[in-house]
Amino acid sequence: MAGPVFKQIAIIGVGLIGGSIARAALEKGAAGEVVLFDGNADALRRAAEIGFGRPAATIEDAVREAEAVFHCVPVGAMGATARASIGAMKAGAILTDVGSVKGTVARDFRSLERADIHVIPGHPIAGTEKSGPDAGFASLFEGRWCIITPEPAGSPDYVAATDRLAAFWTTLGSKVERMDAQRHDLVLAVTSHIPHLIAYNMVATAYDMEAITEGEVVKFSAAGFRDFTRIAASDPTMWRDVFLNNREAVLEVLGRFEDDLTALRKAIRNADGQKLFNTFTESRRIRREIIDAGQDTAAVNFGRDKDEKK
Amino acid sequence: MAGPVFKQIAIIGVGLIGGSIARAALEKGAAGEVVLFDGNADALRRAAEIGFGRPAATIEDAVREAEAVFHCVPVGAMGATARASIGAMKAGAILTDVGSVKGTVARDFRSLERADIHVIPGHPIAGTEKSGPDAGFASLFEGRWCIITPEPAGSPDYVAATDRLAAFWTTLGSKVERMDAQRHDLVLAVTSHIPHLIAYNMVATAYDMEAITEGEVVKFSAAGFRDFTRIAASDPTMWRDVFLNNREAVLEVLGRFEDDLTALRKAIRNADGQKLFNTFTESRRIRREIIDAGQDTAAVNFGRDKDEKK
Repeated sequence: MAGPVFKQIAIIGVGLIGGSIARAALEKGAAGEVVLFDGNADALRRAAEIGFGRPAATIEDAVREAEAVFHCVPVGAMGATARASIGAMKAGAILTDVGSVKGTVARDFRSLERADIHVIPGHPIAGTEKSGPDAGFASLFEGRWCIITPEPAGSPDYVAATDRLAAFWTTLGSKVERMDAQRHDLVLAVTSHIPHLIAYNMVATAYDMEAITEGEVVKFSAAGFRDFTRIAASDPTMWRDVFLNNREAVLEVLGRFEDDLTALRKAIRNADGQKLFNTFTESRRIRREIIDAGQDTAAVNFGRDKDEKK
Repeated sequence: MAGPVFKQIAIIGVGLIGGSIARAALEKGAAGEVVLFDGNADALRRAAEIGFGRPAATIEDAVREAEAVFHCVPVGAMGATARASIGAMKAGAILTDVGSVKGTVARDFRSLERADIHVIPGHPIAGTEKSGPDAGFASLFEGRWCIITPEPAGSPDYVAATDRLAAFWTTLGSKVERMDAQRHDLVLAVTSHIPHLIAYNMVATAYDMEAITEGEVVKFSAAGFRDFTRIAASDPTMWRDVFLNNREAVLEVLGRFEDDLTALRKAIRNADGQKLFNTFTESRRIRREIIDAGQDTAAVNFGRDKDEKK
């Protein structure tokens, strides 16, 4: 491709994801220029210092010349940042985001009624348990899926804008998948939201056991619990918003999880070893599929070296 | 220390843990000689090929000259392997194990009525999701806790034997903790057994969702679910036995977990963002404690390099 995908992009919210997009876009030539805005002045200053792009004085100034505006704030704040800036966007620009929930974000964006703006919500499946601008790094999206949820029947201009946004993510190293927003929310409830909720809950349960000291839990955490605390260390605001905004799918999957757990509890109570063995054997088979699909490696360190901050 | 802690040890069961003890004991000079036995002739032959020690023709032959016999089989099989071999053990030898449940194993061992054998159950908190002799490696126990559950009031000989077993684990690089068997079982239910049960259950739930294809789950597993499948990939027989043998503590902790999850579900249903935020914030604090305690690192790859097979 000759030249960058977008001459200029705007990043609203310079945390782990926003900062990583900015840095990756500049390093990989996906954007000619990056303009930054964050409601937190310290984070904005820090992001500019690190070299994520040029800070703007106001959110309107940040989006004025951008061909694509990426809202990288918690899902619950997407509507407000879009509303505050959409009036300043130029005609034909792309309005997108990186939120973990797509149904409510799509609704919020489309309610803003600027027919000359292309609304294409997105969700890069990438991240670490860290947050803030210093957590950002250019290789975060390499080899990861990025889901975009365009309208099913768009104008030729809209389709062209969708293709450009997909090209942007591809340039950052992502594999792009197009999906219906509602389907996204159900799939992610299973692969991400409920696993996080359960991890948070397990950590809370451990610390509510008055018979066991915090020290004991910490000391013997390597036995499995440690992995749950890592998952449960993610940004609390981001996750609160995920559960408030993907309520329907989350409650549906959670109901299934609880039913299945009740069945396992009964198997334990009734000493039904065969039921336990069958469930555990099936889970092991699924692990094998994930490794075969290249989503993880069989190495004991999970091949996570590639995730590491450069 | 001059010379090995034990002149000869026997390893009954040459899987991940048994194989790793054998190799570590020889490499670090904790045992002068290692004799191996496994009911699976292929596994025994393979362990001998790898160089884990000298294979014995029968379980009795394996234990005859050993100063310490390590039963490294699933918890449900401990009683049988100990029963089959205790008659051949020499007076004053140590009978120990590596099982994840200590109450039932201690009961099984002590029911065998050989007053001249020192029964000292043990549990090294170490492992990977792999199993079989080829999974074993000498550094598995380095820096890890090993819990031993000796009788509270033992003879001077028994206390001396307990000290020798502790010295053996220390030579392998472990930190040794002495604990009551019942307390061990409750602590491990929290830090290990319930996290594993939940991970198994989450994987099963994902695959029971008829609205979502296996392909979608595998594809987007990196969003959190991947870590659950890793935990859920452990040996099914071992885990079946853990739940059958630690039923009381597991059901107690599981009840707490379910109550807490019900509270989170209500918070989601009622859109109680504050309750969600508070729970998530508390979990993050606990993660910090675990990192500060040196049980994990803040590195994005979790510092798991050190776990890797050499």
